[in-house]
Amino acid sequence: MKAEIITIGDEILIGQVIDTNSAWIGQQLNPLGWDVTRITTISDTADAITQSLDNGIKNSDLIIMTGGLGPTKDDITKKTLCAYFGVDLVFDESAFKNVERIFNHLKREITQVNRDQALIPANAKALQNNFGTAPGLWFEIDNRIIVCLPGVPYEMKDILSNFVFPQLQKRSVDIVSHRTLVVSGIPESLISEQIESIELGLPAGLKIAYLPNYGVVRLRISGKGKDATLIESQITKAVSAIEAILGKYVIATSDKRIEEIVGSLLTEKQESVSVAESCTGGYVAHLITSMPGSSAYFPGSVVTYSYENKTEVLGVDAELLWNKGAVSQEVVEKMAKAVKLKNNTNYGVAISGIAGPSGGTEDKPVGTVWMAVTNGINTDSRVYQLRGDRRQNIERSGNLALEMLRQIILT
Amino acid sequence: MKAEIITIGDEILIGQVIDTNSAWIGQQLNPLGWDVTRITTISDTADAITQSLDNGIKNSDLIIMTGGLGPTKDDITKKTLCAYFGVDLVFDESAFKNVERIFNHLKREITQVNRDQALIPANAKALQNNFGTAPGLWFEIDNRIIVCLPGVPYEMKDILSNFVFPQLQKRSVDIVSHRTLVVSGIPESLISEQIESIELGLPAGLKIAYLPNYGVVRLRISGKGKDATLIESQITKAVSAIEAILGKYVIATSDKRIEEIVGSLLTEKQESVSVAESCTGGYVAHLITSMPGSSAYFPGSVVTYSYENKTEVLGVDAELLWNKGAVSQEVVEKMAKAVKLKNNTNYGVAISGIAGPSGGTEDKPVGTVWMAVTNGINTDSRVYQLRGDRRQNIERSGNLALEMLRQIILT
Repeated sequence: MKAEIITIGDEILIGQVIDTNSAWIGQQLNPLGWDVTRITTISDTADAITQSLDNGIKNSDLIIMTGGLGPTKDDITKKTLCAYFGVDLVFDESAFKNVERIFNHLKREITQVNRDQALIPANAKALQNNFGTAPGLWFEIDNRIIVCLPGVPYEMKDILSNFVFPQLQKRSVDIVSHRTLVVSGIPESLISEQIESIELGLPAGLKIAYLPNYGVVRLRISGKGKDATLIESQITKAVSAIEAILGKYVIATSDKRIEEIVGSLLTEKQESVSVAESCTGGYVAHLITSMPGSSAYFPGSVVTYSYENKTEVLGVDAELLWNKGAVSQEVVEKMAKAVKLKNNTNYGVAISGIAGPSGGTEDKPVGTVWMAVTNGINTDSRVYQLRGDRRQNIERSGNLALEMLRQIILT
Repeated sequence: MKAEIITIGDEILIGQVIDTNSAWIGQQLNPLGWDVTRITTISDTADAITQSLDNGIKNSDLIIMTGGLGPTKDDITKKTLCAYFGVDLVFDESAFKNVERIFNHLKREITQVNRDQALIPANAKALQNNFGTAPGLWFEIDNRIIVCLPGVPYEMKDILSNFVFPQLQKRSVDIVSHRTLVVSGIPESLISEQIESIELGLPAGLKIAYLPNYGVVRLRISGKGKDATLIESQITKAVSAIEAILGKYVIATSDKRIEEIVGSLLTEKQESVSVAESCTGGYVAHLITSMPGSSAYFPGSVVTYSYENKTEVLGVDAELLWNKGAVSQEVVEKMAKAVKLKNNTNYGVAISGIAGPSGGTEDKPVGTVWMAVTNGINTDSRVYQLRGDRRQNIERSGNLALEMLRQIILT
């Protein structure tokens, strides 16, 4: 069962907005046995919508279209769908009740623009939108399903979860399964060489994808077919064979982010961590606290951005700061030890660097980042020379620091 | 001049990775006078690549293809391009020199897999990849340009910036210009009604797009044509008319994020801010420090996740915490005042809430977030009931807190 996602919106084409909706939809459809074979982003013009529908209907059993259902003038999806199917817009009682419900709640007057949200193509079924006035639309034409949804992420997700996914699950025929190994400390090309014989010997329906990102490579082993037990056992066999070869480089056997891996380790060991951040400015704390339940192992942290703050909050010697610079081994080690002590945690992590775009010197160019981790007995520190822009340097530093934390937890 | 972006990679189709490359490329191409009319993400199969090339060549003057140029088995772009154009792979001396340069630097042995990176289709020109071994590829066929790039973001960006964009700028014919108004405090449908007459009276070539996100609506006014002066004056006229109607709801007259708006205000006034975060766990500090130059107005902040930390670091009365709960008006006001005092800044911001998925109670369900801002004289506090998942609640709280900060800076 092939699915296709069409996202409507000039704001995506000009890069003002990143399309996160399609990624979410892809994630959900896959385990339901629907294969997303194409994601297309198009302009909100009638021509582009018509052409993409034509293309989609040729290739796919299901088209999920998002965007272009809002109340404003640049939203022309409904009219184009009517023209495409040769039907009129009709007033839908249930969709209007929903508009009323929302406006009563907001204590606002319903305007004509809002009322028009309840007009839907005559061949569509309206899907309840709990969080907005634009209903989702469900079409079934010649054994193909076309679903149109508002582009607002939480509205789109709610409608899909409540109405669309349960329907799709009933209608799927293939079983799809994935497992991901997270590999760290070995480059993609070397992994590829080492597991070449495994890849060449994979049974039909199984494949391995390499997903490299910031020093970590995710290996995704996926299988597809009619027999769930067979697929699972084939995947398990491939995973074991890869694990046997890559050994300690495999840092997780499911698709986890480094903050999740670290969080699980700390939870399991009933240990805790605190962080002192300079150049990452709160990003490491944000990664850690993005995990539900992180309050069990993370009491808090500090961002010490200024020299004064490093001295006052963490007791870093002012003379040391001026002699060695804030971006130095001595300073990050002191910061890591101080924050551990201050928060009474098992581990302390500290990062100080030059994220850019300015602030670099000849000795310490933009992208120089010192980081340290301590468990109270041993303190490990490293310097990295990163080469991204400010945002990338911050994100990469955060990931690298958590990887150092993972290693010290395991010692 | 129409452009199209094709992204190759199963990892995007199944939602394991979000396609940020296309957004970046779209952002860069637009001001060069190239109109991105479609972004397509496809599977790394020969059929999908061939079909998307066929579709692209029909519609566009330029195709930028990313992904599928790495050294591993799942990267089949080069072979498919050879089959498509009816050419062979040939050894490229400059591409091989680049492989050697990188491996010498890494002090690693060059394997056959690495050596093969220097094979390129006979009708392509190799583009130097400063950060990786896979060269970019440039094809010119029947007045159409096809560029193939590795999917690794910093490699792709570097090749485009150094070689591709300068070429494209030379060849563009149309001038494109955008201006964005950031509007806050008024819903999209009401904006639409208020500026309807302006929209209906826009000259040909001009259009307005609505980009709503987290309580803020971006209005993007764009113009396109041959006469740069005319387009600029038409855009300026439309922008002034909209500003006259929306008045104080316009919070920025260029496309800025809230952290940028706040950063500019603080820089201009030579004032400073510090933050005490509970449920946002460092995200607000991360937003603030994501701006270059933020060290001028941000000395540091604290994440006080636990009760003990709130008491020890910020002096929040333990009894108050137990009586009112950490998620309360009294506690956030105390936190905002304490962090301001502690860091000796002009403003203090504090946030405490229940980001979810667990931790909610009947009184204070998941998504309840208290936030406070203070300037030392006045303290403003608000409670929000958010309805997203953990990540959304954190991000939305961060944006809302910075909007409160913006308001108090302007009082």
